[in-house]
Amino acid sequence: MVNNIENRILENDKRAAARLITMLENKDPEGFRILKSVYAKGGNAYVIGITGPPGAGKSTLTDKLVKAYRKKGKRIAIVAVDPTSPFTGGAILGDRVRMNDLNTDKDVFIRSMGARGHLGGISEATSAAVKVLDIFGSDIIFIETVGVGQSEIDIVKNCDTTIMVMVPGLGDDIQAIKAGVMEIGDVFAVNKADRDGSARTAREIEMMLDFNKTLAWRPPVKMVVATENKGVDELVEAIEAHREHMLTSGAFTTRRIQNAKSEVVSLIKERIEQSILDNAHNEDKLSTFSKEIVSRALDPYTVVERLYEEIKDTIHIK
Amino acid sequence: MVNNIENRILENDKRAAARLITMLENKDPEGFRILKSVYAKGGNAYVIGITGPPGAGKSTLTDKLVKAYRKKGKRIAIVAVDPTSPFTGGAILGDRVRMNDLNTDKDVFIRSMGARGHLGGISEATSAAVKVLDIFGSDIIFIETVGVGQSEIDIVKNCDTTIMVMVPGLGDDIQAIKAGVMEIGDVFAVNKADRDGSARTAREIEMMLDFNKTLAWRPPVKMVVATENKGVDELVEAIEAHREHMLTSGAFTTRRIQNAKSEVVSLIKERIEQSILDNAHNEDKLSTFSKEIVSRALDPYTVVERLYEEIKDTIHIK
Repeated sequence: MVNNIENRILENDKRAAARLITMLENKDPEGFRILKSVYAKGGNAYVIGITGPPGAGKSTLTDKLVKAYRKKGKRIAIVAVDPTSPFTGGAILGDRVRMNDLNTDKDVFIRSMGARGHLGGISEATSAAVKVLDIFGSDIIFIETVGVGQSEIDIVKNCDTTIMVMVPGLGDDIQAIKAGVMEIGDVFAVNKADRDGSARTAREIEMMLDFNKTLAWRPPVKMVVATENKGVDELVEAIEAHREHMLTSGAFTTRRIQNAKSEVVSLIKERIEQSILDNAHNEDKLSTFSKEIVSRALDPYTVVERLYEEIKDTIHIK
Repeated sequence: MVNNIENRILENDKRAAARLITMLENKDPEGFRILKSVYAKGGNAYVIGITGPPGAGKSTLTDKLVKAYRKKGKRIAIVAVDPTSPFTGGAILGDRVRMNDLNTDKDVFIRSMGARGHLGGISEATSAAVKVLDIFGSDIIFIETVGVGQSEIDIVKNCDTTIMVMVPGLGDDIQAIKAGVMEIGDVFAVNKADRDGSARTAREIEMMLDFNKTLAWRPPVKMVVATENKGVDELVEAIEAHREHMLTSGAFTTRRIQNAKSEVVSLIKERIEQSILDNAHNEDKLSTFSKEIVSRALDPYTVVERLYEEIKDTIHIK
């Protein structure tokens, strides 16, 4: 008996929310039953993603943004995601350990998500956590990533507003990252803007944005010094302007539908993988075929066709 | 008519290999037909992964390793993978641009792989490129990543030996990365070992390795200064020792079979996604369901079950 987690979550019980997130991370069927039963109560939280290269000061900036929104009386949740960390739940990732003053605020919920072994599932687990924290009654959910790799991009693509945090002078290979991730930034923050080169970094971002003149929303570029709380109010204004744009233009709903589509397709893929690997007979077939791939008797593309044909009737999604 | 790419690849024609990799990146069915027809000729290349946080000097180290192996008369291919970059093929990623002297060596093949839009597919495209470069006659294939996010980890997990490049003093959130990726390093390189703190970095790695005493292979930790070519020969010795261990212990074949399994499961998932999205009728169903998720009429977990039930007979893998 789970002591009615459903009701406790709806009554804003932090421990119940934390417990349900853990159940979902562990793919406990009871967790999915509970989430399904309360799913209709959600949809009110606004989800803000914070991403950017390691060393950009994302954690410190998130703290300051949380404090700014707390002043407006908002209830906040922070999901700190590190796809390369095995730590999750109670364990605190990297800079998160510094957030002691937020930890004691009853209207701030903080959760760390790590990969803890099942590497593919962190994006799914993060989406599930966001659903719980929405139903739990958060006004704003921040999703903060540790880096800006592919899984982090997949994760922040599930947000209503994504803040891309850049920083001057992180060297060539970090600057190269920018090109591929520009598209996911709704608002750009140049952090550590008291450092040499920050104006140049901002100019480079603006130049890249100039290439894409068809944008319905031109992402603003804001200078901040998170450690000194400088520029944070202006950043909040930029976030609110984007939110307003999303709501009035209809882009908010369009994006959420697109995100739901992506999530459904990911879930189908994930469930199919589970169904294949959980079936000992299918696992045996996969092993036999894999040996033939390594011995070069068969190529992987032929194996995929044959294996799927042989096992498709055994795949069950639940 | 593709002017017999099959034969040209087997005759060590660089342009034919580059052409086939591009076809596979573009999911051109003719590319898969060609790769299948020559697949049995491969299996001779040794695959070395080079990963680590941005700024660790991976590109420079890769160059030095390539030169060391060139002295041994080995034919080399380098696949530089950046999941966050849209650039691919001819475009050169980040530091790769510096490798001019390697570019003019006829026995070094260099290829950049970016995400170019279809974000999920970079791991699949990299695996396909490695198959081509193996069949093409490379003795050693280096896979170099730009960072150490989830997709980079997935990519280097396809290697026979993975070198984890660390560096002193990259700050807290980069140090935090180490915990989750320790398991994929077969050999550790502490680069920029002339900097303060390098001995401490090496000690921290050794301490983490101490936690896992059950390892059949204890990963060595080597100090290098790639820019000055210091410690590179010792690193090559460590790589060769790991290779010897892999071959004599049987771990080489076990790992390749495990990698083949992972690849087959990934390919099935990828092909199922393609099959769903390429079918206009299924796409419509997915859109309708997604709207119901956003309006909270249905939850995504229920949608996944219903949608799969409705469309499973339309899924064809080819």
